[in-house]
Amino acid sequence: MPVLVMKFGGTSVATPDRIRRAAKRVGVEVAKGYDVIVIVSAMSGETNKLVGLVEETSPLFDAREYDAVVSSGENVTAGLMALTLQDMDVPARSWQGWQVPVVTTGVHANARIEEIPTENISAKFGEGMRVAVVAGFQGISPEGRITTLGRGGSDTTAVAFAAAFGAERCDIYTDVDGVYTTDPRICEKARKLNRISFEEMLELASLGAKVLQTRSVELAMRYKVRLRVLSSFEEQSDEAGTLVCDEEEIMESNVVAGVAYSRDEAKMTLVTVEDRPGIAAGIFGTLADAGVTVDMIVQNVSELNYKGHTEGVTDMTFSCPVNQVKRAEKALGDAKAAGKLIYETLAIETDVAKVSVVGIGMRSAAGVAAQMFKVLSDEGINIQVITTSEIKISVLIERKYMELAVQALHDAFGLDKVA
Amino acid sequence: MPVLVMKFGGTSVATPDRIRRAAKRVGVEVAKGYDVIVIVSAMSGETNKLVGLVEETSPLFDAREYDAVVSSGENVTAGLMALTLQDMDVPARSWQGWQVPVVTTGVHANARIEEIPTENISAKFGEGMRVAVVAGFQGISPEGRITTLGRGGSDTTAVAFAAAFGAERCDIYTDVDGVYTTDPRICEKARKLNRISFEEMLELASLGAKVLQTRSVELAMRYKVRLRVLSSFEEQSDEAGTLVCDEEEIMESNVVAGVAYSRDEAKMTLVTVEDRPGIAAGIFGTLADAGVTVDMIVQNVSELNYKGHTEGVTDMTFSCPVNQVKRAEKALGDAKAAGKLIYETLAIETDVAKVSVVGIGMRSAAGVAAQMFKVLSDEGINIQVITTSEIKISVLIERKYMELAVQALHDAFGLDKVA
Repeated sequence: MPVLVMKFGGTSVATPDRIRRAAKRVGVEVAKGYDVIVIVSAMSGETNKLVGLVEETSPLFDAREYDAVVSSGENVTAGLMALTLQDMDVPARSWQGWQVPVVTTGVHANARIEEIPTENISAKFGEGMRVAVVAGFQGISPEGRITTLGRGGSDTTAVAFAAAFGAERCDIYTDVDGVYTTDPRICEKARKLNRISFEEMLELASLGAKVLQTRSVELAMRYKVRLRVLSSFEEQSDEAGTLVCDEEEIMESNVVAGVAYSRDEAKMTLVTVEDRPGIAAGIFGTLADAGVTVDMIVQNVSELNYKGHTEGVTDMTFSCPVNQVKRAEKALGDAKAAGKLIYETLAIETDVAKVSVVGIGMRSAAGVAAQMFKVLSDEGINIQVITTSEIKISVLIERKYMELAVQALHDAFGLDKVA
Repeated sequence: MPVLVMKFGGTSVATPDRIRRAAKRVGVEVAKGYDVIVIVSAMSGETNKLVGLVEETSPLFDAREYDAVVSSGENVTAGLMALTLQDMDVPARSWQGWQVPVVTTGVHANARIEEIPTENISAKFGEGMRVAVVAGFQGISPEGRITTLGRGGSDTTAVAFAAAFGAERCDIYTDVDGVYTTDPRICEKARKLNRISFEEMLELASLGAKVLQTRSVELAMRYKVRLRVLSSFEEQSDEAGTLVCDEEEIMESNVVAGVAYSRDEAKMTLVTVEDRPGIAAGIFGTLADAGVTVDMIVQNVSELNYKGHTEGVTDMTFSCPVNQVKRAEKALGDAKAAGKLIYETLAIETDVAKVSVVGIGMRSAAGVAAQMFKVLSDEGINIQVITTSEIKISVLIERKYMELAVQALHDAFGLDKVA
């Protein structure tokens, strides 16, 4: 029988009633003829409670013991989900990570899945079991100790199982009903997408559309696992949610799939930097060592013989999250004091935001960037920094114009209409 | 290095602070040179919470999933205890049942330990680890699924580890400071015993002195594991608590070690039963099938030719817990209606209590029974049923005299004085 993976997040299994609701969805897929692998998160709040106990117990905790404690939340949900399914006469049983076993690296609290042997669960499917409920977010290290996968781990577990079992699809049930053309909270015309490509989803996820963890989308793209994001709180239908899939499955689409934003950005400019080979490496090496996540980088054209400099000078502008500004400032100041970097001043602006348009259609459509810049110009919005990739154009603008920019771009690229 | 097993119950590990307190006790034993195996229960309230979730989810639950869910409470405590010890610079790590592995039967929710291989933990002791923290109450079935041991399971885990590792002692930390000559709540002269024999402890435990689970005492007796019961809430000393040990270790002792009672008993009498071979088996088979736990049984002398009965007739009296009376009544009534049992009436008294004196000294001392009966007679207490064993004499009396009987017997046998 074809295999389907269904993943339920913490809010979808927060109470026995919600677990029952989720189990009913599983029952619908079983009735369609699927053998189902259900991946569950901990009941919402449980993981935070366990993490709190660990931190209270030992601020500098041993990650191996952290994993042993924190993984218990998913174990509870897995058992309860199996019981609920059995109560509905659906043959089901639970598996903890070590029972499958979900073989991971030994990097505790942030392990990566290395292998998922399918024999154990497949044998049970062969004996008439219809649902394997698996505790998400966890595995077992080469030393036989429990590991956890870090943030978004249950999504990753789900995708990895879908890949291992050659599942027809991996349905991620969450508290939103899909992926939108932009954030409905700042643009009321935002529209749910029926389909989106892996590449677009990756760009949107990394830009702050927090529906799916980047890692799970990367894994899905690598193994061509069709992912569906849908809400556990709304009625199911074949068109529910958003299918994240290979671009070949998307027949027609807008040139632009979505408009993303990131509110809390800062722009920093090193003014009058000596422009000699290795200077960029020096600057961004310093920042990386200090743990600053640099996003956009722009270097001005070099100017020669400026104020007595023997080599050319330039300005170097970059952006980073606003809460890393202090760290960046200190790192650059220290490097200057130590004579490792030569620049005149550091200009900091903390009131900027990033707005991006994303779409695989850009690859073949010319003029998207030009159109984007014109839209912003027409609204009187000044563009401070521009970066582009094959399927994305991002600009840094003054933060107060962010909503306006998102709305104007959403309109201009016709995202409120189905392609 | 010699091995010590220390077991901490739910109230002793109810909060991170209490876990720290317990860990300090462990640290004291480590400093003395012991390699310590710590067995932990779930934080108090956690197991009940998990059982509640299971029952809410599925009233007729699959015991295998019940075990998977309920065992997670002990896993959390084990991790937190290991973290706390590490934080105190004591080399420690946690083990879940399947990691040791604690091999049990496949009787879920009520499994029995079959084997505890010591290699795994011993190897770590050899590498410098000083404390192995083991989640109590759980194991792994021959099919590789998680099992739990049923009531008092963590005590049983502790004793089994002590037996497997040849531990010098098994210390059971609980919320009472030892075993008393009787219940201090009803007899203010009750005195803590420094030592008590396994046999006496077994009789006292089964009579309702709920300090240790009967099963763990049986196991300790079989493997000669010296058990010490002591409070986690009082200062430690070498004389703390009560040592449960082989009688050879008890040099001098009172003839009677303690007075036990059981408050909620019922007495039932089948009046005018035909006295033919197999009748007792018929009655008590019927009751056993109905799940009635019969305790004391007395059969009167048979009377011949009573009211035209062709065989002799007799009265058959037995006692059972008061909450099983309805079940017993129905089972016996049904058997009568079906013609399987012939008796005239069923007399039920639900206001009785059982009082027992227990002591291995009785074996060699004559007249203990006579003395007991005289004490009760002097207090004007009528004895309804008597049973005796080698080290115990029990009587059924009217419940309102229970406290009086306990106090009078405690005085008469000099239990307030050290032997």
